[in-house]
Amino acid sequence: LRRQKVDIKKLSNELLNSNLTALSQAITLVESQSNRHEDSVKKLIENCLPHAGNSVRIGITGVPGVGKSTFIESFGMHLISQGHKVAVLAVDPSSSISGGSILGDKTRMEKLVQSPHSYIRPTASGTSLGGVSRKTRESIALCEAAGFDIILIETVGVGQSETLVHSMTDFFLLLKLAGAGDELQGIKRGIIEMADAIVINKADGNNIDQAKSAKLEFNRALQLYPPKSNDWKPKVLLASGLKHQGIDKIWELIERFVKQTKSNQSFDDNRALQAKYWLTQSIEENLKKDFYSHSEIKIALKKELLKIDQKKTTAFEAAENLLKLYKKTKL
Amino acid sequence: LRRQKVDIKKLSNELLNSNLTALSQAITLVESQSNRHEDSVKKLIENCLPHAGNSVRIGITGVPGVGKSTFIESFGMHLISQGHKVAVLAVDPSSSISGGSILGDKTRMEKLVQSPHSYIRPTASGTSLGGVSRKTRESIALCEAAGFDIILIETVGVGQSETLVHSMTDFFLLLKLAGAGDELQGIKRGIIEMADAIVINKADGNNIDQAKSAKLEFNRALQLYPPKSNDWKPKVLLASGLKHQGIDKIWELIERFVKQTKSNQSFDDNRALQAKYWLTQSIEENLKKDFYSHSEIKIALKKELLKIDQKKTTAFEAAENLLKLYKKTKL
Repeated sequence: LRRQKVDIKKLSNELLNSNLTALSQAITLVESQSNRHEDSVKKLIENCLPHAGNSVRIGITGVPGVGKSTFIESFGMHLISQGHKVAVLAVDPSSSISGGSILGDKTRMEKLVQSPHSYIRPTASGTSLGGVSRKTRESIALCEAAGFDIILIETVGVGQSETLVHSMTDFFLLLKLAGAGDELQGIKRGIIEMADAIVINKADGNNIDQAKSAKLEFNRALQLYPPKSNDWKPKVLLASGLKHQGIDKIWELIERFVKQTKSNQSFDDNRALQAKYWLTQSIEENLKKDFYSHSEIKIALKKELLKIDQKKTTAFEAAENLLKLYKKTKL
Repeated sequence: LRRQKVDIKKLSNELLNSNLTALSQAITLVESQSNRHEDSVKKLIENCLPHAGNSVRIGITGVPGVGKSTFIESFGMHLISQGHKVAVLAVDPSSSISGGSILGDKTRMEKLVQSPHSYIRPTASGTSLGGVSRKTRESIALCEAAGFDIILIETVGVGQSETLVHSMTDFFLLLKLAGAGDELQGIKRGIIEMADAIVINKADGNNIDQAKSAKLEFNRALQLYPPKSNDWKPKVLLASGLKHQGIDKIWELIERFVKQTKSNQSFDDNRALQAKYWLTQSIEENLKKDFYSHSEIKIALKKELLKIDQKKTTAFEAAENLLKLYKKTKL
């Protein structure tokens, strides 16, 4: 990949013929930040896009220890038994620090790793959330073009990664453990609002009673939220990834979700909204980057903040001055 | 004000001498959107800023019918009895539609209106949230410069107005009514996270029992949230604006809040953060306005959205194209 020029036409064709080596090579290309590959990546995406989109994109989140890998192994194998092809991607903006903990433990996905109907790709990492988003969105498209009809996107939920995954999936699944009664305690802000289903994992053996009472509590909490615009009422389910219990019910639920949201048009509306969201996000991130990274602005910004602190100017007047300076330097 | 040039030096001096007519005239000047007054407003603010800031800024929100006016009358008169000077401002971004319902009912603030130690100013309205924010922030500074040491900022909580008021106050108070048990139902997203205190109003007569059980429920809900960065634990209190019950306890609570946050520096830190927030908000709002209102961008944006829809491009590639075009038109 590094030495020679990639034959994008050949690579695209192989990928579209479900060649997994080609898919891996294509994702590596997308993930490389080198400017040398920019045109190749563009062409590759252009070739694949018309064949992308025909999948169900499922976001899966939960704290470390909730059993994500074991759950994905069990869930993925069930999907394959139903005739699906399953790609598993991971989003982990923290991986540059942690060294990529996510999807690292493939011993818990032993069967899924070996199945010819699955594709597992660890960690789209990167320095900026915008970069991670782009790589993940493009990797999703490549997997779809390669024939995968179910895309699982796993995140550990560090920082804003859950919002990011939520903004590129059709269905968002929150994995939880039953604890000592106060299940909602310590749950991340906003996460319940994003969930289309909450799955209490490890609901087996002695855990069953606790899991049932956790289910009650989550159901109560869900009622406090206003209905979603797509009319979907989030559900709480019990499951055990380890014992393969309740996994079939989760997929039945998601199938019902897809049927319902496709019939009321909200499935497609949501995808269009997501595209628009990423377009404006990308535009605005760049506008801000351009402004704040400007050397003259950097100096002037510090001065204006000091003046605000000294009660010599207001935030609004300071903003006006900075914008004037910015426009002047652009001319 | 319209016919002749305003003598800003005279106006500023009168305002700094607590002349309420001058204060009203100054706020009117701030609220006028005419470019003719721009320099006058700048000079006025410049003169007043060094004397601003020495107040406790309290945001008060609640749905229509919760008894805001009656509460403010009772609360404001209590503050005055404690030797304070109280300014009441209102934020109502919807007032261009509703005709300004807020603070309109001055019959419920009969005593406060007549007190020489109060100043009541209805509705800073405007077409944009940014405009409303600026006018309100500047009006706060003017009131402070005129000697008011407590600023109450009322909002009905339409749209984003609560976030706006929260971002310019030291203490945020949510007024609620006790209802039929499920108190949290229908409460606006994020509002509980903003509240420093929840006051169950109209907790009098036959309402007492309901109010007490509502207090329990809110206390339970508050425990679900992670602690605030200033270490303040939001409290739930009962009060009756009409019967003047519990009003003193609310002010005691706020005094404790001010003491605590001033001793751990978070009071000043918060104000500095707010100034920085409004600075960046104002910058970013203007960057976006400049971009999206550009006539060539408007046309190109529609084309790119269509191309995304037709799977001919991605959101990120579309953003790149638009930013390139934008830069080109700026040269």
